[in-house]
Amino acid sequence: MKILIDVMGADNGLGEIVTGSLNALKKIEYTPIFVGPEDQIRPLIPENLFEKIEIIDAQDVITNEDRPATAIRRKKDSSMVKAFNALKDGKANGMISTGNTGALLAGASLIIGRIENIDRAAITLISPGLRSNTIMLDVGANMDISPELMVQFAKMGRSYAKVLFQKDDPSVGILNIGVEEGKGNNLCRETYDLFKNESFNFIGNIEPYDLLDNDADVLVTDGFAGNIALKSVEGTAKTILSLLKSSISKSLFTKIGGALLASSIKEAMSSLDLDGTGAAPLLGSKQAVFKAHGSSNSRQIEVGIMQIIKFIEADVIADIKANMEQSHE
Amino acid sequence: MKILIDVMGADNGLGEIVTGSLNALKKIEYTPIFVGPEDQIRPLIPENLFEKIEIIDAQDVITNEDRPATAIRRKKDSSMVKAFNALKDGKANGMISTGNTGALLAGASLIIGRIENIDRAAITLISPGLRSNTIMLDVGANMDISPELMVQFAKMGRSYAKVLFQKDDPSVGILNIGVEEGKGNNLCRETYDLFKNESFNFIGNIEPYDLLDNDADVLVTDGFAGNIALKSVEGTAKTILSLLKSSISKSLFTKIGGALLASSIKEAMSSLDLDGTGAAPLLGSKQAVFKAHGSSNSRQIEVGIMQIIKFIEADVIADIKANMEQSHE
Repeated sequence: MKILIDVMGADNGLGEIVTGSLNALKKIEYTPIFVGPEDQIRPLIPENLFEKIEIIDAQDVITNEDRPATAIRRKKDSSMVKAFNALKDGKANGMISTGNTGALLAGASLIIGRIENIDRAAITLISPGLRSNTIMLDVGANMDISPELMVQFAKMGRSYAKVLFQKDDPSVGILNIGVEEGKGNNLCRETYDLFKNESFNFIGNIEPYDLLDNDADVLVTDGFAGNIALKSVEGTAKTILSLLKSSISKSLFTKIGGALLASSIKEAMSSLDLDGTGAAPLLGSKQAVFKAHGSSNSRQIEVGIMQIIKFIEADVIADIKANMEQSHE
Repeated sequence: MKILIDVMGADNGLGEIVTGSLNALKKIEYTPIFVGPEDQIRPLIPENLFEKIEIIDAQDVITNEDRPATAIRRKKDSSMVKAFNALKDGKANGMISTGNTGALLAGASLIIGRIENIDRAAITLISPGLRSNTIMLDVGANMDISPELMVQFAKMGRSYAKVLFQKDDPSVGILNIGVEEGKGNNLCRETYDLFKNESFNFIGNIEPYDLLDNDADVLVTDGFAGNIALKSVEGTAKTILSLLKSSISKSLFTKIGGALLASSIKEAMSSLDLDGTGAAPLLGSKQAVFKAHGSSNSRQIEVGIMQIIKFIEADVIADIKANMEQSHE
């Protein structure tokens, strides 16, 4: 099993990416193929591991400021484009990147191509939850979409949920502003009608109020609403946690209070399993392409690599293909 | 100044509503007209205030389970419909309710009517912010709308922001998934084009990541995305605060830690000014109709009443009317 690892574009630099990849190597048999500037990657690899890894040298980088499709077309020497080309040429089983999400999506479409009968690929998010995690899609790639595409999203999400959550019949919900049938915009209402007639385990609408605590294994939404929800959750968490931090650093008493609470807070927050969410696939792509968060630490990269290997071993893409053929018979 | 106060439909019962209204009476000159079951309201009023208040007896209630338009048409003896009719008949200057939002919107439309040249009324939210609060609209009334309606929302929001924030030229932003021009769904992109040509102070797109910390006085969105954002924020705050609480109650040490931190956390959270957000108007209605959160405590009701009085005294509705005439000249 060979995994292409685009080391560029992470907020915390390529060290976290390389470290996470090498940590995964201690737990699972695979060959990391690092794609990026060899002169920066090589010094990070212990000599005894030289034989277990490969490097594809790439001196250019696609930044978050680059225009996605243009960058994919023009930046031939970038780590992301070189990884895509290696994947297309069969040099690896999958690739993972923390880089520009739009470019990753453009590369998956322009270089790798989509699964037959899938109209558009989706950005997937493994959303942490108190009861269980949820595969949410689309969280940013596709706006103004049809209810038929929402059905494709549901089916792709289910194929992955079977593997990720080890469930035979994963449940599907629609992200909506109310739980009752008939709530929401036209897209949600028409999607509800279609989902009712599908054979999968449809559990109805899920309100964003319950985003971190719901029963859906797969939560379907258009890329606009999904991204609004995702960024609202992140922004609120950021604001509250920064207020909490500033209230702890206020005085000697509050610092003692913070110290007494630290491990308990950490334990409580870990029930949200933020580290466990790692990375997520661009579902709809013909080959395994995983996106990890730009701010990933080495632990998240490690988890992400375990996830892409599981995704490839379980052949989720074959399962999606089979489902899509069925629905077109 | 007379304000109709629908005492029914609050999560915490009518006591909080009556108490908050009477507390406002200590600070500001006005006549509360309580609408609801007189036998339950009367015992809550101190005898020395009997002359300062009025009661309209109403024995029925519109619940959150009622279908909005149907309830407004049929439940003639409900507190909400009786309040609307009194407002229409000129018996008061405005009304405030914690009840069923959809019904409130239906009543504002069916009984009170809309301002000329406003196509649809919007549910407004005063969103708390670290730097300053924001008037956000629409947060749940109108889905699948036109960019032209977004312009009307912006103008109505500005009329209210002038009064609420005492600013001559309030800034307007669009809730969107990215800050750059060209980001988002069709509605956002077309709205951006229209806003650029308006004479108001347009500051571009605001990401939900910055929902609690941004520079917009007025944040315009369609009711679907606005409600998704609002409920995502509420749900995340709820989840994190409940995790925090459970981590404090864990042991004797953590309880001591929590006690040492309590006032500091409270102070930090108060920078979000949750209590100060009180209630918000249904903008577009011909008369002042304010919605307070169902879970409002007496303090929030008190603030809400101060806000509706300010709204009426400053004649925000006349300002909206004047703006709408201008744009149709």
